[in-house]
Amino acid sequence: MPTLYDYELSAGCYTVRLMLSILRQPYDAVPVDIFPGVAHLEPEFLELNPLGELPVLVDGDRVLRDAPAILVHLAQTRETGGEWLREADLAEITSWLLMAQRLSASVGQARLIRAGIAQGESAPLEAEAHRLLRVIDEHLWFGERESRDWLVAGGAPTIADIGCFPDIALSEEAGVMRQDYPAVRRWMDRVKRLSGFIGMSGVFPAGPARE
Amino acid sequence: MPTLYDYELSAGCYTVRLMLSILRQPYDAVPVDIFPGVAHLEPEFLELNPLGELPVLVDGDRVLRDAPAILVHLAQTRETGGEWLREADLAEITSWLLMAQRLSASVGQARLIRAGIAQGESAPLEAEAHRLLRVIDEHLWFGERESRDWLVAGGAPTIADIGCFPDIALSEEAGVMRQDYPAVRRWMDRVKRLSGFIGMSGVFPAGPARE
Repeated sequence: MPTLYDYELSAGCYTVRLMLSILRQPYDAVPVDIFPGVAHLEPEFLELNPLGELPVLVDGDRVLRDAPAILVHLAQTRETGGEWLREADLAEITSWLLMAQRLSASVGQARLIRAGIAQGESAPLEAEAHRLLRVIDEHLWFGERESRDWLVAGGAPTIADIGCFPDIALSEEAGVMRQDYPAVRRWMDRVKRLSGFIGMSGVFPAGPARE
Repeated sequence: MPTLYDYELSAGCYTVRLMLSILRQPYDAVPVDIFPGVAHLEPEFLELNPLGELPVLVDGDRVLRDAPAILVHLAQTRETGGEWLREADLAEITSWLLMAQRLSASVGQARLIRAGIAQGESAPLEAEAHRLLRVIDEHLWFGERESRDWLVAGGAPTIADIGCFPDIALSEEAGVMRQDYPAVRRWMDRVKRLSGFIGMSGVFPAGPARE
């Protein structure tokens, strides 16, 4: 059974918990007190991840860091994982995992500043978050009435969707409102209806089905 | 033959040129004047990459953005590419491609600020660059005399090495000196001795073989 080094309010940790839940993969959680504590900077933890960041997944003899890379690992190694990482789409999926990291560095970081966990100026981060959301909204919405269901074309969700969802779903905690991104909102709704979906503090379940 | 939208001094474009050269893949280059011009913000270019960033590779009917994702694409589709993207190491390779993006956001961005191409404060970016270089140096150097040859264990280089090399090799243009990172310097030398290696302005060929 894999072990997840976890912090309840971390968007990256939530990414991994969400994937584990969708894949019905049981795991042991080890809470790491990164706030108000500094457990992520202790030698013990730095041995697992010298970057001093959560999440970390230990699976057998493999120690994995970075939420997007953990998604790749789970999709590769779990029985029902394959459909989440279609080989023919790997380059495009990689682009979206890099987008997940951009979202984490902008909207995710702005959220930490608002919460008093990180220092810095949040205005440029919020502006970058809006720039990214605009790109994602236009990507999901093409044609006048047609919208793309998932980030990577092909009719089914991939780890790209799971990787990008958490920071977008938590954007309002960063002061980044989503009213101008209707295609993103519809996509969020689709993610929330996936079998095995779980929320977290600040991420609410889907409302009643419409039409 | 693929088409690379290219800017001579971009580390990301150099990443792709380096991989193309190692794979002996001919290509057409379309220079994009992102400085002093703003060709990357013109509607024509934004249609290729709505993020307004280089590099972009057009290969048949596929349009690929983000240097790390283009590396994945080339490794997957070129005859001699497979060895550069070992499936069993995909999660770890993904972590290093995310590291390449971190390097671009820190040392790469600091270099652009020094060159007057980007605005912002470079001190925190340089500090982050040193933090990352320290982690990479320790990763490459384990034991008293033993060093790891490549970022991903397994005896041969992968796209992880190609993805991380350019921003590290250009770090001194960002004011980030490498004297404290001997394992990184040895690794750079190994990359420079790869068959098909090419440099760019600021990245010099390997010196004469030592020992």
